[in-house]
Amino acid sequence: MYFELIGQMKKMLGQLDKWLEAAGAFAVSKKFDPVVFATLRLAPDQFAFARQVQNACDTAKLVAARLAGKTAPAHADTEQTLDELRARVQSVVTYLGTFSAADFEAAATRVITQPRWEGKTMTGADYFREHGQPNFFFHITHAYAILRHAGVTLGKRDYLGALTQKLP
Amino acid sequence: MYFELIGQMKKMLGQLDKWLEAAGAFAVSKKFDPVVFATLRLAPDQFAFARQVQNACDTAKLVAARLAGKTAPAHADTEQTLDELRARVQSVVTYLGTFSAADFEAAATRVITQPRWEGKTMTGADYFREHGQPNFFFHITHAYAILRHAGVTLGKRDYLGALTQKLP
Repeated sequence: MYFELIGQMKKMLGQLDKWLEAAGAFAVSKKFDPVVFATLRLAPDQFAFARQVQNACDTAKLVAARLAGKTAPAHADTEQTLDELRARVQSVVTYLGTFSAADFEAAATRVITQPRWEGKTMTGADYFREHGQPNFFFHITHAYAILRHAGVTLGKRDYLGALTQKLP
Repeated sequence: MYFELIGQMKKMLGQLDKWLEAAGAFAVSKKFDPVVFATLRLAPDQFAFARQVQNACDTAKLVAARLAGKTAPAHADTEQTLDELRARVQSVVTYLGTFSAADFEAAATRVITQPRWEGKTMTGADYFREHGQPNFFFHITHAYAILRHAGVTLGKRDYLGALTQKLP
């Protein structure tokens, strides 16, 4: 199920790319420089828009890599323009596309850690459920909320993307 | 895995209860009527805070019920005060506590529909991954973001809650 749920992260990053495109069109229609999106934030002590996008990307990338026992590619977090942010999103979508279901066969019991945990560890199952997935949704939803707060026209369908539905 | 992931929704609703408590303390410290939280929103065409809380509750409740083939209890969506919203959250936490792993054995292949889909259906697996879980995180994260935007002191630890970590 990790493969499918990480596939959902990949799908949602594809939606994020569309939100970034909509943000660019909004800036053109309102005649402002779209680079201002990068520093918009909902609270002074929350991350700004560019960082929310970067963190959504990094969370998906690191969840996939850690659960598969691989080393994720590094990103410098220097993106400011919408085009740069879209390229960042696309690079992670491409990276997630390199995984197969077999990569996650040992995911649930893998021992996961990261520098800020000071030696503490989580099982892959706990890390995915309690940390990775909630963090991914936290950052991608904040990116969405910042754009909505700024006036960009987006709705729940843009958030969810196309659903796998069967006709009656 | 559905049981565990729905358990994570239960855990996060427990965190939402703490955010509501923090919102109440913030209102006392700033000397305003906490009922004003109910109508705060990030964009004029987004749901207000009370509705975000109600929808987070309803999404978790309906995901669990639908995947288990049960009928969820109805809620009237009349909550306005923080105490009423906390009671709503608690009622869903209690409801989610009535499920066991065995309830979700047939979840992946169950046929799911809802009135607004006009007869279209999804498998339980697709519904959970593409619709239920993203919607749950959408609404609970918007509830969090609205409180942060209003000035309530919350951080990522309040969002995630305690992690199942092993000491080095």
